[in-house]
Amino acid sequence: MNKSTGNHKDESSHLIVEKQFFHIKENNFILQCGKKLEDITIAYETFGKLNKEKNNAILVLHALTGDSHAAGVYETTDEKPGWWDVMIGHGKAIDTDIYFVICSNILGGCMGSTGPASIKSEGEIPYNMDFPMVTIPDMVRAQKRLIDHLKIEKLLSVVGGSLGGMQALEWSVRYPDMVESAIPIATTMKHSALSIAFNEVARQAITTDPNWNKGTYSKEKKPDMGLSVARMIGHITYLSDKSMRTKFGRKLQDENDLPFTFDTKFQVESYLKYQGKKFVTRFDANSFLYITKAADYFDLEEQHGNGSPVDAFSNAKARFLVISYSSDWLYPTQESKAIVNALKKNRLDVSFCEIESEWGHDAFLLPDKRLDQMVKGFLASVFEKKRMANNEI
Amino acid sequence: MNKSTGNHKDESSHLIVEKQFFHIKENNFILQCGKKLEDITIAYETFGKLNKEKNNAILVLHALTGDSHAAGVYETTDEKPGWWDVMIGHGKAIDTDIYFVICSNILGGCMGSTGPASIKSEGEIPYNMDFPMVTIPDMVRAQKRLIDHLKIEKLLSVVGGSLGGMQALEWSVRYPDMVESAIPIATTMKHSALSIAFNEVARQAITTDPNWNKGTYSKEKKPDMGLSVARMIGHITYLSDKSMRTKFGRKLQDENDLPFTFDTKFQVESYLKYQGKKFVTRFDANSFLYITKAADYFDLEEQHGNGSPVDAFSNAKARFLVISYSSDWLYPTQESKAIVNALKKNRLDVSFCEIESEWGHDAFLLPDKRLDQMVKGFLASVFEKKRMANNEI
Repeated sequence: MNKSTGNHKDESSHLIVEKQFFHIKENNFILQCGKKLEDITIAYETFGKLNKEKNNAILVLHALTGDSHAAGVYETTDEKPGWWDVMIGHGKAIDTDIYFVICSNILGGCMGSTGPASIKSEGEIPYNMDFPMVTIPDMVRAQKRLIDHLKIEKLLSVVGGSLGGMQALEWSVRYPDMVESAIPIATTMKHSALSIAFNEVARQAITTDPNWNKGTYSKEKKPDMGLSVARMIGHITYLSDKSMRTKFGRKLQDENDLPFTFDTKFQVESYLKYQGKKFVTRFDANSFLYITKAADYFDLEEQHGNGSPVDAFSNAKARFLVISYSSDWLYPTQESKAIVNALKKNRLDVSFCEIESEWGHDAFLLPDKRLDQMVKGFLASVFEKKRMANNEI
Repeated sequence: MNKSTGNHKDESSHLIVEKQFFHIKENNFILQCGKKLEDITIAYETFGKLNKEKNNAILVLHALTGDSHAAGVYETTDEKPGWWDVMIGHGKAIDTDIYFVICSNILGGCMGSTGPASIKSEGEIPYNMDFPMVTIPDMVRAQKRLIDHLKIEKLLSVVGGSLGGMQALEWSVRYPDMVESAIPIATTMKHSALSIAFNEVARQAITTDPNWNKGTYSKEKKPDMGLSVARMIGHITYLSDKSMRTKFGRKLQDENDLPFTFDTKFQVESYLKYQGKKFVTRFDANSFLYITKAADYFDLEEQHGNGSPVDAFSNAKARFLVISYSSDWLYPTQESKAIVNALKKNRLDVSFCEIESEWGHDAFLLPDKRLDQMVKGFLASVFEKKRMANNEI
């Protein structure tokens, strides 16, 4: 690990960070599907400093199309800051002056970690659809190797929204002794029929694009049209009816009068098209297929509790802060309440808050003082208790 | 008009009906976009008998992908009954023993009425994307010609759900003297950003299918993949989160264990795929583009009220029964309430009911005693008042 990363600040007080790579050397990494995956690379970034007691580490887990670049900026590029820069940094809710933050790109991703676009261990061609099916437990097991590698025995917290929240929940029940606390945000214990339906249509859009070619496509001829439609479908589910009314309503793009043509004219149309186009420049279509499938397969109840949500958490030991958003219709509040209910029945220490918001599922990515304060307070309390128990304070 | 249609009943007491065609002879049918459309054909069906006073006629208006076949069965085919057979027929809510029911396929459609797949008036090739943009007011104006042709001066009611409800609203303000009553169901005064967003993604799915070929495709090589994805997107919006939980949950199609492959395995995936595949056999892709655009353009407030919902209905004279469904998130109850509010401020006679249902937007197509009773009672009351005013009773 490059010790200089994650500690500097640029002029605008953003952290200067660097993408790093961890290689899982073991050759017996058996996935949940039963297949073996060799030579796994996990891309990750760190923010802040690990203290000498190694008890200030927080693992941040990204959503569907996120990456390890959770905060700060790279020294060599002038791209915009990481996806949760509003939350992670000097003096922020996840304060890098206090905590050592780790974020890794998920297994199956396309931002540096091993995924379908990676070259097979023997040969020169990418896996594409030969890549084995990966699940959220597989992703978490790979992250565990990274945490072991960093010589951290216990994480102060595992924090994530959406697919990141599913990983946080999985961490809490798979490695209960390694998790002091967990903050699952805007997430669910099991993927609903509605969420599966949206993901399936998105996958259909990709696999019916002739350029997809059964997953074997060149950089010059990618299934961009299908992936773009898939992204647009996703984007609708990340917003709320009200946020769309507020943001777009029936506003037209460039003119006052309806043009009576098929040109994109409503602002909401232009916005979605732009999001679709932008996405294809940074994301791999096969990776999208694998990650959405992993989300659809996620069912903590079934896997850890034989269908019982209460039993699913029977081994968990962490303190929990569960957060939902009132206008999130992808993983509505009732699904967070189901988590809270199961945790409480296990007599676990759990705080819950539904944040009133009109910004839909994606709200957790936006600046929000209420989220800031809750996360900051919760982490401080967990950290203080931990240090008191260790006679550090 | 073939007088024998709409009066017979088959063994299972379904009406035997026949598709008929009306030709708009006038050559000055100017559309809202300013373009002229010649040789318009409107496909329609009738159910029941027009009485001698010609005051028992009800116009039923179909939704996005519906057709003139609202009820009964055709004599020559053994296909399933029309799309609203649960509502229209002997002794049903819209009782064909009492009322004369008319349903026409919308202008721009592909079920017998003139639309993009129709052959241009001079030549042998279809319009395809040369078809002019049609709007809901255009559809209603074409229907008005049909009603004139049937020599009906005043409709006892105009009834429709979803896009059919938009047409019913348009009828009530465009031809106030021809509409005794209106029953807009699960509909809206203006298409919201969320609805526009879903339609735009569906259109993108079609127009990015290489077989679409800028709208010029052969019967052998249609943009079936794009149209199928478009239909799947639509289908998700017609259901509710709860109905999907109830109907599918996380149930698998053929097995108990997750297969760890990309084969369709969750029941909800199979259902959507099946809906998509079935749809492409009966619907024209270009027609889908035109009709969804007509829906997106619909804005009664803007067009009839200069942005004021109250002013939009200032000419309306009808009695109204407005119905919404609690789990409809495409056109949620608040949009029906906005209609009711505007009608009330015009001191119009309006009844409103939100039906508690978990079946989402599509609920109006399902058998429902509450809908039956409300529609039946409302129509009886309107008809009785009409006949009393005419000294018939």
